[in-house]
Amino acid sequence: MSINYLPLLMGGLGLVAAFVVYRIVASYPAGEGKVADIAVKIQTGAMAFMRREYLLMWAVAALVILALGFSDLGWDTAMAFFVGAMTSSLAGFIGMYTATRANVRTTVAAHEKGAGTALSVAFYGGSVMGLTVASMGLVGLGFLYILYGGDPHTAETIHGFGMGASLVALFSRVGGGIFTKSADVGADLVGKIEAGIPEDDPRNPGVIADNVGDNVGDVAGMGSDIFESYCGAMIASIAIASTFGVELMNQRLGGDLMGEALRASLMGLPLLLASTGLVCSVLGILMVRMASTMAPERALRVGTIGAAVLFILAAWFVIKSLGISSGVWTSVLAGAIGGIVIGLVTEYYTGGPPVRKIAREGETGPATVIIAGLSTGMQSVVIPVLAIVTIIYFANEFASLYGVGIAAVGMLATVGMTMAIDAYGPVADNAGGIAEMAGLGKETRKITDSLDEVGNTTAAIGKGFAIGAAALAALAIITAYIEVIRHHNPDFRLEISDPDVLIGMFIGAIFPFLVAALTMSAVGTAAFDMIKEIRRQFKEIPGLLEGKAEPDTVRCVDIATRAALVRMLPPGLLAVLAPVFIGFGLGPKSLGGMLGGALLGCVLLALTMANAGGAWDNAKKYIEKGHHGGKGSDTHKAAVVGDTVGDPFKDTSGPSMNILINVMAIVSLVIAPLL
Amino acid sequence: MSINYLPLLMGGLGLVAAFVVYRIVASYPAGEGKVADIAVKIQTGAMAFMRREYLLMWAVAALVILALGFSDLGWDTAMAFFVGAMTSSLAGFIGMYTATRANVRTTVAAHEKGAGTALSVAFYGGSVMGLTVASMGLVGLGFLYILYGGDPHTAETIHGFGMGASLVALFSRVGGGIFTKSADVGADLVGKIEAGIPEDDPRNPGVIADNVGDNVGDVAGMGSDIFESYCGAMIASIAIASTFGVELMNQRLGGDLMGEALRASLMGLPLLLASTGLVCSVLGILMVRMASTMAPERALRVGTIGAAVLFILAAWFVIKSLGISSGVWTSVLAGAIGGIVIGLVTEYYTGGPPVRKIAREGETGPATVIIAGLSTGMQSVVIPVLAIVTIIYFANEFASLYGVGIAAVGMLATVGMTMAIDAYGPVADNAGGIAEMAGLGKETRKITDSLDEVGNTTAAIGKGFAIGAAALAALAIITAYIEVIRHHNPDFRLEISDPDVLIGMFIGAIFPFLVAALTMSAVGTAAFDMIKEIRRQFKEIPGLLEGKAEPDTVRCVDIATRAALVRMLPPGLLAVLAPVFIGFGLGPKSLGGMLGGALLGCVLLALTMANAGGAWDNAKKYIEKGHHGGKGSDTHKAAVVGDTVGDPFKDTSGPSMNILINVMAIVSLVIAPLL
Repeated sequence: MSINYLPLLMGGLGLVAAFVVYRIVASYPAGEGKVADIAVKIQTGAMAFMRREYLLMWAVAALVILALGFSDLGWDTAMAFFVGAMTSSLAGFIGMYTATRANVRTTVAAHEKGAGTALSVAFYGGSVMGLTVASMGLVGLGFLYILYGGDPHTAETIHGFGMGASLVALFSRVGGGIFTKSADVGADLVGKIEAGIPEDDPRNPGVIADNVGDNVGDVAGMGSDIFESYCGAMIASIAIASTFGVELMNQRLGGDLMGEALRASLMGLPLLLASTGLVCSVLGILMVRMASTMAPERALRVGTIGAAVLFILAAWFVIKSLGISSGVWTSVLAGAIGGIVIGLVTEYYTGGPPVRKIAREGETGPATVIIAGLSTGMQSVVIPVLAIVTIIYFANEFASLYGVGIAAVGMLATVGMTMAIDAYGPVADNAGGIAEMAGLGKETRKITDSLDEVGNTTAAIGKGFAIGAAALAALAIITAYIEVIRHHNPDFRLEISDPDVLIGMFIGAIFPFLVAALTMSAVGTAAFDMIKEIRRQFKEIPGLLEGKAEPDTVRCVDIATRAALVRMLPPGLLAVLAPVFIGFGLGPKSLGGMLGGALLGCVLLALTMANAGGAWDNAKKYIEKGHHGGKGSDTHKAAVVGDTVGDPFKDTSGPSMNILINVMAIVSLVIAPLL
Repeated sequence: MSINYLPLLMGGLGLVAAFVVYRIVASYPAGEGKVADIAVKIQTGAMAFMRREYLLMWAVAALVILALGFSDLGWDTAMAFFVGAMTSSLAGFIGMYTATRANVRTTVAAHEKGAGTALSVAFYGGSVMGLTVASMGLVGLGFLYILYGGDPHTAETIHGFGMGASLVALFSRVGGGIFTKSADVGADLVGKIEAGIPEDDPRNPGVIADNVGDNVGDVAGMGSDIFESYCGAMIASIAIASTFGVELMNQRLGGDLMGEALRASLMGLPLLLASTGLVCSVLGILMVRMASTMAPERALRVGTIGAAVLFILAAWFVIKSLGISSGVWTSVLAGAIGGIVIGLVTEYYTGGPPVRKIAREGETGPATVIIAGLSTGMQSVVIPVLAIVTIIYFANEFASLYGVGIAAVGMLATVGMTMAIDAYGPVADNAGGIAEMAGLGKETRKITDSLDEVGNTTAAIGKGFAIGAAALAALAIITAYIEVIRHHNPDFRLEISDPDVLIGMFIGAIFPFLVAALTMSAVGTAAFDMIKEIRRQFKEIPGLLEGKAEPDTVRCVDIATRAALVRMLPPGLLAVLAPVFIGFGLGPKSLGGMLGGALLGCVLLALTMANAGGAWDNAKKYIEKGHHGGKGSDTHKAAVVGDTVGDPFKDTSGPSMNILINVMAIVSLVIAPLL
């Protein structure tokens, strides 16, 4: 059996591991009575959204499949697209299915067994998502690699997989992001401010939609985002390896092997590194389990760092045993360390002194809170971008352009573990929501709050990591785009002083701003619809505010669903069609410039928005702990304004940037042979 | 006499024209009693700020002069730097001196003669600034051109002039921007919100500082910003012409002349176009005077459009008579039309339906106002950037890279007129402030309000124009940088796929975000100092709130001055030193990439911030006219939050972007021969 079968095999084993963990989650009690009722409502709402989302998405996917099949790219690429879209859809579905079961089991565990068990359930729930994302990626890409990866001439077919993954990410992350924040903002504004009832109060018709949103946005959406970057990094590395000039390749990347044998090793490496990373992630999850007597943050950190260290060590042996230069390992190292640095910086800006400064600015009102938050977000770009620059420098220095792709793979290889921690957050958040809605009392709420707090930090780190990974993956895909074009036309050059390139750069830089604007105003408009519906229910359903009647939560889920699907189309179409129009209209040079301009804009806006949003959120929480007058004070009200602005920043527009640049890059890569 | 003496001569005549207009302003009555008192306070405050600002600035300038003189660039470049800094300083001083005289005369005219006369005085006041900026640029550059412009080998010396102009712009625009907004935000927050007294109330110790701010920020600051772009565009065009390869030059730009004779014409053209533009500006100012029976907006528009049309026609004859290809004229046309398009788009986003949408969002509180405003600002980048792209396309198509520089010259040639209209705004604003403080009654206030309203629109258009001009000028300077490096090293290439360039691009994109963050938080911190001082005075000066005692306005001016000068240094040093460190540290490729990344970031952030700020401002004003509950309603309060966030956006951080990219570009151009 060829070593090429290994990724598929490891992916399959990973799915088995995910199933085992799912069975553990399912073995915990699911509650009864009101608790179970609420959980079922959330499950039903999430599934209702997903059904409609996937229906629309697969209708679009069918069109793309036909377009690809009948184009010069052919049916192989169309099939690859199908596999990419299918594996990503499945990963999102499985992850969300599990999360909407783990949430209530976490609530019950918190109520009946205490913090330790609750943490385990929530973390296992997240782990299923993490393992599924990593395994599905390996299964799908591994399968295609067996078919097409053996020959550099057919390797271009695999690019279609990335496009399929991107389409799913677009719908899940952008659609999910609009859903979750329109529900959140709408429910909060009417509930807390107008009706004067607390967050997650069962009388509020919007709270189920809000809790559904955590699952569709932060679990399924985040999963598809990471899935896209994870596979994009591998695809780009394969593409770069397949187009490398022989002399340069031998000289820069050669170890024990040279020539085409070396190329085969280089093309195979990304999937093998990811397979190794999956094993390390499983070990990381076991480490968290073993460390469960520690404080939750520390247990989670032991797992993350442990998995990363194991992976870095194992990567050395993989690279050496494949006969590749050890310089490639330096790229892996740069990527893995860079990812951690970006995560830590995010933690600082969304948790450290900047948050306390924003809280203090609340004393002079909401305007100064907004100014301080925006300023924090903008400052927070410095170190992550320098980290990316450093990764590029080392990766290129030690392994040429191939190193950039491999660094991205290195950053993302232990995604099974990092994604597990990410998905833990919304599960814990939901558990708290259920406890509140079911009225399980202060003690239970206190436990879920403490889990949620850990989840907020891990979510912020996860977001920083997702941006860094998306940026590096996109950069690798753009590099692959340039290499593929150059492979077909050796004179191709992307010079900044060339007006074609320059025009492309300016046009590219427009997109992040435009998409951020569209997604932000989508949330604004959708939230407004939600507010009107909630107001209507408070007015028209007798006894609702007194707790004597049930709110019509299904209708709210429906409104958020419709808003999300309708309003994600303009930014989605922009992302997909822009490369096609610019590429065929202005040519490959302008398209290359466009990708460069868009990359810069996306990375900087994504960091700014994610970190400003996280900082505002935590500034509000800091005040709620009793600082600067505490809950209900004017300072608190000012901080709530910041938090509300931050909601679409960190959960809709910011994450959309990751998708935007990756979609544009992968579409460009797919159409590159046609240009 | 050589034609090379013409710009110097025209510049001299322009200064005479400016003096004549100043005499007209001075001939109007300056008021007496309370009105005169207040005017003197504003004058004294403005001069006090300027004295300290120029003192610090010239200390820095002295260091730069020594550094340049002792470097390989030599004392000629140092002298050019001195001339640039000196002419810009003088233009700022004269413009502000006049504005602080025109403001009170406008008030008196409004009180005694009515709207028509008041408009004339305010517009003449602005015209002095406009004519002085254009004339000083021609005098300074024209003088240096006589010395060094005759020979392509010595033309590099002239770059020093641009660096001098940039240093002044940095201090005036960034320092002035921090001054004006810290005073504005501070005075507003305490006065309107805490003490419950209206804007521009004489009891508020901060109002004099606020009115001083209009002059130092919006008159002197804006003037130095435009001066820098105006001269930068000319310098870049001269540099591109002096390094052009002979064959390409003959083929693309040749008309009746060829070879070195053609080069001499191309090098001379920018200054001659600017001279022509100055004449057309004077004619435009006369047109406004003749159209003074029309509504003020229309009169101002007749002048602007009239000057532009005259210039475009005249430019044709200038270009033909110099024996240059008519393609160059197409670049002039593209630049001139592009500038108008950008201005009109700005008018739409800061005055049209988007503003009404923001006002409506006020009904759900400040958070939705902020989201809608940011979204508007981000959307507003699309058309201006496409306009810039179109200019680049046509300019390059018809006149190669030289066309890009000439398009910038074309956009800026009638700066005497456009700047006149810009500077009219703060004069009218100040006139209203004086009327309010002196208690001249509702009738007068109504006239000054109507003038102010026109001023707000022209100011918004002026800001859009300034951004477009700065972007194009910076692009021309960056092009010149690449050409100069390539002139010394023909193999120099700036390819996006080259990691050195890519690293530079990422680093460059950091700067706009970092500088925006620094300037925003500078305003926040300085406003906080101001708030503390005003609170202290309200508490400690007995009878102040009852109007029986005088506030200590000097102290407030002093606080804003100190804050501005201290806090402008970090962003200023960043802008000046970054190119030096990156250029000598990472090399000319990374520096080129950095300029590209910074250009994109600066243009997009500048447009976003300026237009979001303008839209918030006008949304507040729209509500104050009685919509959505009018003044004092909750919707109004929400809009005030937006306006307060918008203040540093549109008047500090946004304009800093223009300076940042131009300073970085010109410093790079100056050090290019050393790299």
